[in-house]
Amino acid sequence: MAFGWIEEQARARRRAGLVRTLRPRPADSPLLDLASNDYLGLARHPEITRSAAEAARVWGAGATGSRLVTGTTELHTTLEGELAAFCGFEAALVFATGYAANLAAVTALAPHGSLLVSDAGNHASLIDGCRLARGTTQVVAHADPDAVRKALGAHRGPAVLVSDTVFSVDGDAAPLGRLAEAARESGAGLVLDDAHGLGVLGEGGRGAPQGAGIAGAPDVVVTATLSKSLGSQGGVVLGPEAVIAHLVNAARTFIFDTGLAPAAAGAALAALRLLRREPERAARAREVAATLYERLTAEGFEAVRPDAAVVSVRAPSPERAVRWAEECRAAGLAVGCFRPPSVPDGVSRLRLTARADLTDAELRRAVEVIRATRP
Amino acid sequence: MAFGWIEEQARARRRAGLVRTLRPRPADSPLLDLASNDYLGLARHPEITRSAAEAARVWGAGATGSRLVTGTTELHTTLEGELAAFCGFEAALVFATGYAANLAAVTALAPHGSLLVSDAGNHASLIDGCRLARGTTQVVAHADPDAVRKALGAHRGPAVLVSDTVFSVDGDAAPLGRLAEAARESGAGLVLDDAHGLGVLGEGGRGAPQGAGIAGAPDVVVTATLSKSLGSQGGVVLGPEAVIAHLVNAARTFIFDTGLAPAAAGAALAALRLLRREPERAARAREVAATLYERLTAEGFEAVRPDAAVVSVRAPSPERAVRWAEECRAAGLAVGCFRPPSVPDGVSRLRLTARADLTDAELRRAVEVIRATRP
Repeated sequence: MAFGWIEEQARARRRAGLVRTLRPRPADSPLLDLASNDYLGLARHPEITRSAAEAARVWGAGATGSRLVTGTTELHTTLEGELAAFCGFEAALVFATGYAANLAAVTALAPHGSLLVSDAGNHASLIDGCRLARGTTQVVAHADPDAVRKALGAHRGPAVLVSDTVFSVDGDAAPLGRLAEAARESGAGLVLDDAHGLGVLGEGGRGAPQGAGIAGAPDVVVTATLSKSLGSQGGVVLGPEAVIAHLVNAARTFIFDTGLAPAAAGAALAALRLLRREPERAARAREVAATLYERLTAEGFEAVRPDAAVVSVRAPSPERAVRWAEECRAAGLAVGCFRPPSVPDGVSRLRLTARADLTDAELRRAVEVIRATRP
Repeated sequence: MAFGWIEEQARARRRAGLVRTLRPRPADSPLLDLASNDYLGLARHPEITRSAAEAARVWGAGATGSRLVTGTTELHTTLEGELAAFCGFEAALVFATGYAANLAAVTALAPHGSLLVSDAGNHASLIDGCRLARGTTQVVAHADPDAVRKALGAHRGPAVLVSDTVFSVDGDAAPLGRLAEAARESGAGLVLDDAHGLGVLGEGGRGAPQGAGIAGAPDVVVTATLSKSLGSQGGVVLGPEAVIAHLVNAARTFIFDTGLAPAAAGAALAALRLLRREPERAARAREVAATLYERLTAEGFEAVRPDAAVVSVRAPSPERAVRWAEECRAAGLAVGCFRPPSVPDGVSRLRLTARADLTDAELRRAVEVIRATRP
């Protein structure tokens, strides 16, 4: 049997209590959502869904081809122009997913003979980018500028430091200023994934690099998703014009993939414009996260102080994390549950997202459910 | 300068006449489109765009999270069920892009110690899947069952043969029956990318594996895109239930990526239902391709006999291919232009797609423009 070995792996997974199954949600879920990455509560905002619908009607249901052939509409370039201006970069390039944007940026900026210095807590897509890149990867300790300095020290030739700005699992931020300093001492570039920073950090949600004063620098390239704060789908790479032109010519996930669907481009553009008009949404997401953290730690939970909109609460074991999340769900609360192999340190957590549109009553209810179901 | 080396590559690209730039299209392009992969002409079909719009309104502009957290809606599972039933497989799993589906299938089915036998003409996403997989890759001659047999012969342990069913550049089909035979002699599995077969080949567009009588076999896994014949965005993996459950647990581009946007899922589902209702669209796409091929070769052009909906016409050089495509465009015809490094053999081509909804008058006009602009 060609795929017989799969059953063996499935058995091991069952024994370890690590089987993942899909749970389809209805359109009108009664659950209070603290599990999605819809940080600004825009995915179901009527202005955003209307823009998605309108884009599908005007531009078609799909992009119909690679961005290099028929897949670039004027809607895509408008979105790219406004994203670049908002985040403070010369240029932007939109991808069909954030995963594709990360594969593109990392592989295209790490040629043969180059060094990639990669934070140990980086997202899977950055890790896969490093694996696909022609350069050599050195993994360094999490959020550690001295480790970066040491790794870059001996290398001659092109080098990039690759890091999330906000780490998905614990919601902690990278020390961007000090990392940039460490990279610059060696003339290395920075590739920063701001998936969890855009819309939440920086001035009015302009992202963590803008907040750290390094947006638009000639040695800084930032990636982000359109599927979190912007409530849509897709990814973007932001950087100097020469870098973006290089990606158009060299990034395989750009050249050999169908362009982002017009509905997703239209929704992201509408979300961006709404955020520009209502910049307070970014601060509100951070405020909700801080409130969640304070109330949970006051109840004696071990949580990580949130730097953005993710609050991570420690669970005693994978099995109990799963049961905890199940009991929250039974009580009407959707929370994320991270466990091996999705967590680099093997520690299972509940992962809560602090949507900007949560009311204080909803926050109180969420904390009460988490308290009442404590393992 | 961290990214100073990019300028050097850009200069080399300019010298070689290989610079790619984006050309945004308006919503109401006056060009006759023989460049997109919209094989059945469904991307702008009112039934499909209406379904995309409706899905955005009902389900939101984005999936809001990983398929394992909040990103699976009942719309996604309906689409998966209908795709599996249509193509003749036990189960299906939908991804945000076809690229992601290929990375998932190839990496998850090639563990440590396994052998991947990969056709030399495979799509970039299959090649990247092989690069990311933990197994060892052996590239074999294009569409050559004996080469596959030889590569598999000496190997012990899990093995997969990885191939496109229809190759994007030349539009030629893989000899699926003979490849399956070669793989089965060694107990190897098959991973087949049917991106250009779904909707065009097989009974009523059920795909090349269905046409070859191997759909639904326990050793066959098929990937496809929702962005070509189905006019939308996304990818799918089709296979035995155990394989699909394995992907849910092991495929990084499934676990660590936001789910496909509801608008894209809704559009693909509507396109699939339309194709079931109007199965003649698949035959019409093949017929248009055959007509194009016959008329072009009658004019003395060197073209590849099309096995699906892609017609590839040889150009004398990259520069003249680009100029040829430009002159077609100036005369109102959009055609694809493939040149190094996107073509494995270094031969530049015009690439024409035979949409099912092209009229005979449009076909005549297309051939006339290609003839009049001949380099």
